[in-house]
Amino acid sequence: MMHQASIGLGLDMRYLAERGDDPAAVVSGSFTIGSAMSDTDLGSFARECGVVTFDHEVVDLEGLGDVERGGAVIRPPVRTLSVVADKLGMRRAVEWAGLPVPPWKRVRNPSEALAAMDEWPVLVLKPARGGYDGRGVFIVRAETEVRDLVIRLTARSPNLMSEPLLDIDAELAVLVARSPDGTTVTYDPVTTLQVDGQCRQVMAPAGLSDNLLAEARRIAHTAAEAIGVIGIMAVELFMVDGSMMVNELAARPHNSGHHTIDACVTSQFENHLRAVADLPLGDPSLRTAHAAMVNVIGAADAVDPRRHLGDAFARDPGCHVHLYGKEPRPNRKLGHVTVTGPDANQARRTAWDVVEALRADVPDGVAS
Amino acid sequence: MMHQASIGLGLDMRYLAERGDDPAAVVSGSFTIGSAMSDTDLGSFARECGVVTFDHEVVDLEGLGDVERGGAVIRPPVRTLSVVADKLGMRRAVEWAGLPVPPWKRVRNPSEALAAMDEWPVLVLKPARGGYDGRGVFIVRAETEVRDLVIRLTARSPNLMSEPLLDIDAELAVLVARSPDGTTVTYDPVTTLQVDGQCRQVMAPAGLSDNLLAEARRIAHTAAEAIGVIGIMAVELFMVDGSMMVNELAARPHNSGHHTIDACVTSQFENHLRAVADLPLGDPSLRTAHAAMVNVIGAADAVDPRRHLGDAFARDPGCHVHLYGKEPRPNRKLGHVTVTGPDANQARRTAWDVVEALRADVPDGVAS
Repeated sequence: MMHQASIGLGLDMRYLAERGDDPAAVVSGSFTIGSAMSDTDLGSFARECGVVTFDHEVVDLEGLGDVERGGAVIRPPVRTLSVVADKLGMRRAVEWAGLPVPPWKRVRNPSEALAAMDEWPVLVLKPARGGYDGRGVFIVRAETEVRDLVIRLTARSPNLMSEPLLDIDAELAVLVARSPDGTTVTYDPVTTLQVDGQCRQVMAPAGLSDNLLAEARRIAHTAAEAIGVIGIMAVELFMVDGSMMVNELAARPHNSGHHTIDACVTSQFENHLRAVADLPLGDPSLRTAHAAMVNVIGAADAVDPRRHLGDAFARDPGCHVHLYGKEPRPNRKLGHVTVTGPDANQARRTAWDVVEALRADVPDGVAS
Repeated sequence: MMHQASIGLGLDMRYLAERGDDPAAVVSGSFTIGSAMSDTDLGSFARECGVVTFDHEVVDLEGLGDVERGGAVIRPPVRTLSVVADKLGMRRAVEWAGLPVPPWKRVRNPSEALAAMDEWPVLVLKPARGGYDGRGVFIVRAETEVRDLVIRLTARSPNLMSEPLLDIDAELAVLVARSPDGTTVTYDPVTTLQVDGQCRQVMAPAGLSDNLLAEARRIAHTAAEAIGVIGIMAVELFMVDGSMMVNELAARPHNSGHHTIDACVTSQFENHLRAVADLPLGDPSLRTAHAAMVNVIGAADAVDPRRHLGDAFARDPGCHVHLYGKEPRPNRKLGHVTVTGPDANQARRTAWDVVEALRADVPDGVAS
């Protein structure tokens, strides 16, 4: 999707790909085989590039820091990537910026976890590093479980973040793009629907009151400034008892912004590229009353959605199908579908209908 | 632009490119070096492909006919491409379909041209084959000029088409996409502005009365059926004294449809791909009140518009810039800019403003 956005801008793109059949390599043909976890691969790749950016977080940040100190232009800068790579660091940065966050404590051993459980009987544990799409979220209800779990988790990530299990009214997300000169634009907040921690559906706009809308935009702008992001950033918010708290930041194009390709004047991918290429940012406005984005997640039988495009378009000629060219596997994000229109519910139902036609996973109770 | 549209559909694209730095080769990396004017290149390329299609007309149709008879799937089929490659054949096909065309005569020698001038004192001569963007349109006002011109032109194209110089109120275009099963969808008619025969500006919608709108759509549908096109086709229309005549057909994605990328639910490129891949066609509806598309044509000093993207976006954050990655040359189409919005004139002025910022050619009197 980044490559699609780069074409009209005439940007000369090059991708660091683990394999020649990685999606970005396949659609661009312009790639260097290497790993973002290798400092030598990052170093030699950066020497080919005017600016280096990322669409994922599996990056050797120590090595990247050396590359940046060596003179390469990394956007977002390594200090931003380092903050968001660590859930504890991210929370602290957001708190320091004066923004609301859920209650949290650092946990390094079973006794710290037990102490947290005295305060919060149902505990959510998240390793500070690694984990996405719900991998890396552990809910503990019994003190008898906590010792083994903490020992197992800290063996891989020495720091854990603990939180109480919140009674969340809704999950929201706000995208913000920030330029090297500090200019920002914010997109309309969206509501996201997670199933087992994995994003399944995004509705835009979120339909917030004017006050909450202004608050969400203020939070996104402040968080972007606080961590000095350059490029697009997603701010994931929890609504609890009518007020917003920052759950997480993602300093890259994000699933909660995939609808922007078809629903906004300037997509998150174009604005990410504009920001990292130091071009004026584009208009983030919605160009439709409502947009529904539903992910195409591999079902248990891992059918290739490309084989069912005809069925999908037969359900709705106006749907926007984005397939990622990935090998189908259960639970894998293989693409997404966006439907726009005057009625939110109809857009949502149509999007799920198309996803069903693509033979992707449809969890019980979400599509109706 | 075809490659951009192919990515989300997960189509496995391969491009026949004359050189490795052809735009489609650069952005896709998936190309075979060869010429569409070589039957051997076409033949071996077609063997790699499930379906072959074209975004230009410089094709060896004899060789392509052999390739098709050899079993390759060519869409549009060679009989369609052959009809539209010859202005006389195209006129005849449109007439046979019962559609209005300007008066015309075939001219093969000076005496036939002189005979035509008896009827039409100002004569327009067009070689039946080759020529686009106004190259290949000759206006003759004096009988003394006609002999040498006809001898010169017929040396390269034995058949010429002659027409009277019409007093044209407006030039319109209608895009139609047609599936292998004959289903068609038509886009809203647009008005086009040509300077020296080269398309410079497209405004959508054309703002026709309901009667004319229905007539334009009927013409497009009928013409598509008549020539058996599969894929997208542009029908260029002259408005003369309040009625429409078919000037030309182009059986490929066309400059008069570039606005559809940003202004319509399904772009001409996606609908072309859907048609040739035998997928249900997409919704051609406009998703904005008005769209203005202005071409980025190389100015006399042939500045590279990529160097002025920042100026362009500073003029309008919401403009859609599409650069083609071509070497800048005077009069060359280097890209286009689309601006959408509630007011046609404002969209038009903004689009020209952005084109000016890109340091492209702005002819006198068109931008204000």
